[in-house]
Amino acid sequence: MKEAATQVQADLDRLLPLLDASLTVPFRRGDAVRLGEAVRYSLEAGGKRVRPVLCILACEAVGGTTIEALPGALALEYIHTYSLIHDDLPAMDDDDLRRGRPTNHKVFGEGHAILAGDALLTEAFGVLASADLDPVKRAEALALLAEGAGWRGMAGGQALDLEGETLAAYDLGHLRLIHRLKTGALLRASVEIGAVLGGAAPGERSALRAYGEAIGLAFQIQDDILDATATDAQLGKRAGKDVGRGKITYPSLLGLDGARKALDEATENALCQLASLPNRNSLAAWARYLALRAR
Amino acid sequence: MKEAATQVQADLDRLLPLLDASLTVPFRRGDAVRLGEAVRYSLEAGGKRVRPVLCILACEAVGGTTIEALPGALALEYIHTYSLIHDDLPAMDDDDLRRGRPTNHKVFGEGHAILAGDALLTEAFGVLASADLDPVKRAEALALLAEGAGWRGMAGGQALDLEGETLAAYDLGHLRLIHRLKTGALLRASVEIGAVLGGAAPGERSALRAYGEAIGLAFQIQDDILDATATDAQLGKRAGKDVGRGKITYPSLLGLDGARKALDEATENALCQLASLPNRNSLAAWARYLALRAR
Repeated sequence: MKEAATQVQADLDRLLPLLDASLTVPFRRGDAVRLGEAVRYSLEAGGKRVRPVLCILACEAVGGTTIEALPGALALEYIHTYSLIHDDLPAMDDDDLRRGRPTNHKVFGEGHAILAGDALLTEAFGVLASADLDPVKRAEALALLAEGAGWRGMAGGQALDLEGETLAAYDLGHLRLIHRLKTGALLRASVEIGAVLGGAAPGERSALRAYGEAIGLAFQIQDDILDATATDAQLGKRAGKDVGRGKITYPSLLGLDGARKALDEATENALCQLASLPNRNSLAAWARYLALRAR
Repeated sequence: MKEAATQVQADLDRLLPLLDASLTVPFRRGDAVRLGEAVRYSLEAGGKRVRPVLCILACEAVGGTTIEALPGALALEYIHTYSLIHDDLPAMDDDDLRRGRPTNHKVFGEGHAILAGDALLTEAFGVLASADLDPVKRAEALALLAEGAGWRGMAGGQALDLEGETLAAYDLGHLRLIHRLKTGALLRASVEIGAVLGGAAPGERSALRAYGEAIGLAFQIQDDILDATATDAQLGKRAGKDVGRGKITYPSLLGLDGARKALDEATENALCQLASLPNRNSLAAWARYLALRAR
């Protein structure tokens, strides 16, 4: 476990400076200045950059370079950031706090928060579409990004989640579906886009897709566990909000011990998928690390 | 003028059935049903489909086929539809009526309206990224789509427009900038994407880009003129809302006659750009038709 944490920290030390330097919004004359500030406010709020890091690590795991994965990594963080801005809106989860700071609409107003999300979502595709990469890889990565973020991915999951709040009956299968779309689809896309940009062989690509699917599940279970057990200060956002809202979560359906067991199973499944890859150390460490956070 | 109207009608008769049949949302088990309904509600509301039609006509003008342009055409209508849904939200233009029907958020709620826009924006890139087209053309069309819709395109223009409502001084140059981004960028992209998908030579592509720029300007001027002169029933949305809101428009800056003159100039400019193209009849008719509507 300590080994995993050390590897994760080494990956972050290596990749975060590159990502943070790349995730900026340059201003030009005639730009919508306040929109740029709203975009920058959320983009530069930091965080662990899980999706871009996973994208780069997956690319490297199949023999690709950091730089080949970078456009995909930036696109994924743009998408993730847009989703946080829109999810926090009053009409959605109605949150005031994110990463320890006021949410985007609290600072810039709802109109600009909606537009900042729209702009980030659009630029995600823009940064990848205009990247200096092999066109076939580019088009494939773009299709994966749309699949992960769209109607049958993240946006669909968020909608099911909204719709689900009014459902009376709600079982584990439905909860899994929601999370597979809402959180899992983009994490899976992160890993698979990295694989594509790194030139993965078909077997490597499908193993990495399954790895992404498994850590997506693990990520959601540990998020539910953290929501139920951590404090606001530990999370940098409001804790206990799912419980307070009577929302169905893994701990509420399986109990805390049952949720921890499901988390361990998902992590084991993720690790199994990596067996055939040459450079699997970092991805294995990240799978263990996600499980670790929820202890 | 009658000749232009006849040509436009012939184009619509030929292309609308194809577009309407393609702009549907198929449902599968596990889909977010209400999100799908919200997407479908706005997508199937009809309208003249100006952007996809221009995309197809530009493709045909340089010798390409209808089918080659179709993925770009669908993507453009998805983007346009998303922008209408988000622009109508209470935090933006706060409109209750669109194309003669209640706006999306009035029917499905704000949360679903935001998500329906997000999903359409994402699928726009998805439909183009996964199209069976030459990967180089695909990547180029995707980059143009992001440029037209993003921070330095449509979304940026909408933000400037929101920000501008609080500005005291506001001149013609600033109004032009806003409209070039808010409406012009996506119309220009429509024509240029069509050119790219049709395999335009560089000279043809830049002529079509300039044509798109000019009709974008014409389109906005005539929209302002219609807002000032038509009734709600004629528009299918609230008329006079710019005037009522004290918003700066072409008629308010130039007077109605001045605005009509500016419209004629933009139309002439658009027509000039077409001189070197082999199949220019339809694009010429559409430029004349846009000017005609505002009489």
